[in-house]
Amino acid sequence: MINIAILGYGTVGSGIFEVLNTNAKSISVKVGDDINVKYVLDLRDFPGDPVEKVLVHDFDTILNDPEVAIVAEAMGGVEPAYTFAKKALESGKSFCTSNKELVAKHGAQLLAMAKERNLNFLFEASVGGGIPVIRPFNESLTPEQIVEVSGILNGTTNYILTKMTCEGLDFDSVLKDAQDKGYAERNPEADVEGYDACRKIAILSSLAFGKQVDFEDIKTEGITKITDIDIMYAKSMGKVIKLIGNAKKDDNGSVSAMVAPFIIGSDSPLFFVNDVFNAIAVTGNTLDTVMFYGKGAGKLPTASAVVADIIDEAKHLNDNIKVVWDEEKLELKKADDMTSRFFVRLSGDDAKIKDNVKAAFGEVETVECSQVSGEYAFITGCISEKDFETAISSFPNYINRIRVK
Amino acid sequence: MINIAILGYGTVGSGIFEVLNTNAKSISVKVGDDINVKYVLDLRDFPGDPVEKVLVHDFDTILNDPEVAIVAEAMGGVEPAYTFAKKALESGKSFCTSNKELVAKHGAQLLAMAKERNLNFLFEASVGGGIPVIRPFNESLTPEQIVEVSGILNGTTNYILTKMTCEGLDFDSVLKDAQDKGYAERNPEADVEGYDACRKIAILSSLAFGKQVDFEDIKTEGITKITDIDIMYAKSMGKVIKLIGNAKKDDNGSVSAMVAPFIIGSDSPLFFVNDVFNAIAVTGNTLDTVMFYGKGAGKLPTASAVVADIIDEAKHLNDNIKVVWDEEKLELKKADDMTSRFFVRLSGDDAKIKDNVKAAFGEVETVECSQVSGEYAFITGCISEKDFETAISSFPNYINRIRVK
Repeated sequence: MINIAILGYGTVGSGIFEVLNTNAKSISVKVGDDINVKYVLDLRDFPGDPVEKVLVHDFDTILNDPEVAIVAEAMGGVEPAYTFAKKALESGKSFCTSNKELVAKHGAQLLAMAKERNLNFLFEASVGGGIPVIRPFNESLTPEQIVEVSGILNGTTNYILTKMTCEGLDFDSVLKDAQDKGYAERNPEADVEGYDACRKIAILSSLAFGKQVDFEDIKTEGITKITDIDIMYAKSMGKVIKLIGNAKKDDNGSVSAMVAPFIIGSDSPLFFVNDVFNAIAVTGNTLDTVMFYGKGAGKLPTASAVVADIIDEAKHLNDNIKVVWDEEKLELKKADDMTSRFFVRLSGDDAKIKDNVKAAFGEVETVECSQVSGEYAFITGCISEKDFETAISSFPNYINRIRVK
Repeated sequence: MINIAILGYGTVGSGIFEVLNTNAKSISVKVGDDINVKYVLDLRDFPGDPVEKVLVHDFDTILNDPEVAIVAEAMGGVEPAYTFAKKALESGKSFCTSNKELVAKHGAQLLAMAKERNLNFLFEASVGGGIPVIRPFNESLTPEQIVEVSGILNGTTNYILTKMTCEGLDFDSVLKDAQDKGYAERNPEADVEGYDACRKIAILSSLAFGKQVDFEDIKTEGITKITDIDIMYAKSMGKVIKLIGNAKKDDNGSVSAMVAPFIIGSDSPLFFVNDVFNAIAVTGNTLDTVMFYGKGAGKLPTASAVVADIIDEAKHLNDNIKVVWDEEKLELKKADDMTSRFFVRLSGDDAKIKDNVKAAFGEVETVECSQVSGEYAFITGCISEKDFETAISSFPNYINRIRVK
């Protein structure tokens, strides 16, 4: 019997408890031993809940019990999760977590601590909820030099953009609807400003390129400036707008990373990812592109991913699973130097605009949209962020711009 | 340094050699040691090719060299691959393969042999080419009781169906075009009759349900009877026709498996999988559905999957990776008892047809297609294969039927 503890009995924590109980028999077959939840840590009480028998309020009870081999954390936030993770590893317990803030910030250090002690630190559920993506990165894509990772990493914003696209609604009314349905938080900033997706692409790019990518270094834009008119234009081109977390290595080995809305076409597998679904497309130098798809959130799917880590750690007691993510910081390409094509909208439609655009941007591709008048819209060639900002600054009639993949 | 041998220097075998050479440095980091291709076995000579230095014509050279720790097979066909696999494992070498015939037929036995000897038998490339799916099954979906596996497992047939759908062409002309482009074999039977997909769903369902699923037991239909008119009907319903390998467990625990064309809607993630792409959707009892997507074939992607196995075996020398696939045979639900909804086309459109259909099938859903006349088309309720055959036998004007997902 392998004893474990769960930290936090909220949505994901109670889900872990449920998955372990519901599938106890088949999990035992896969581990070759029973998994026993000896403790669940939560400050609250849960009278009448089956968790009552194992509920504790003090982390030290878990820490000081040498029988506990694995600690699964589902509290969220950097602290006290970080302190608990360090203490658990220091006292010889493997640790796994669904906590993207913790992993993005301290993943490399906790991996190193686990390795030193022949323990494990795993974090499948920190990206993509129940979608297996972290473990495939570490154990299936091993032959590859990763060229690009591109993902729809946040279900709330994908739901909003899908709804805006399908129903022609504006951002504010869809956000309100999503909040009413419980798909978006009352304070939706972490989702709609791209902060959540930013943590996740930081984790994925650290794994892709083997060094620490600090999320603070990743240029991050949310979807709050996307309007129903932008979406009309995208539709008129047969394309969609998606919030994408992207990291790619150029031919010189320099890595750029960004979270932003992108206009994408059906040549991207992400084109078809709608509603609350997430997907992560990974391109390797010999593999071409593969994609992992599923619901990126939800109690049981996310819990299932944590349980997959628990099972892996139970199968690898005192046997470190190699993960290549060094503490050495990866210097990203400066945001100013990152290049893209830009879809741009200007107000006014007199003949002079086209000449001004050509003078500022060179040859561009005009975009027509039958439902919109009084505007001129175009797509630039591939230019740097800095050059775009310089060129656009001479247009007082500038409305909006969206990068084009 | 870990010495390996590659069996076969055809498309996949030479790809393995190329991936190992191209990415040698990053692979060494992931393994923590260098991988050295000590031998490549092929009956042919390759004058001037870099493989010349390590080419051998006799398997015994590899077998009798105790330095060879891993043998990767890419010859295809059950023999001599099966004999070589057994001999390799018996002499203490781990084995990996891209060979779906070998895995479908003898996978359970070779896994048991590997386990007994603390070695490994891995086969990531046998399903879905470069798409990581076998390893996620074994190591990521471990918390789940698998409810259903459904896949587009053959790129050739998916290319043909996509082309028929997009361009309104008939099967024969698209097949000819695919053959001219090298997407289909001159003898296309294994692809278009579903035999290839059948081996693959046999492997996936064995892993999903933990026991041996014999491919001979899986009801298998190809796409040769699908016409451009069937596709018009599917389009008129906003749906597509896909060749799907499916295995599912019903509430009584009984497993049914089938390869056949199915009509599917956009509620299935497989709806969007076009051209030569493959995808495997897996539903677990707590995870919901996740999907793995990518190119299901091709020299380097397939080779990359084999190299992932080589790397995993190199990281687990004398350490068996647990795979649950018992030799005990899983008795599938009888084909006659499997249930489905059926899309049916009858010639003639007089008023009496509807009455006859209602008498034979009960309430059905009429399907209209503006481009087709002189026919009556409908979708039945959920009925068994046997009941369908009985009911349809009284219709001499029967044209075709396709199952509806």
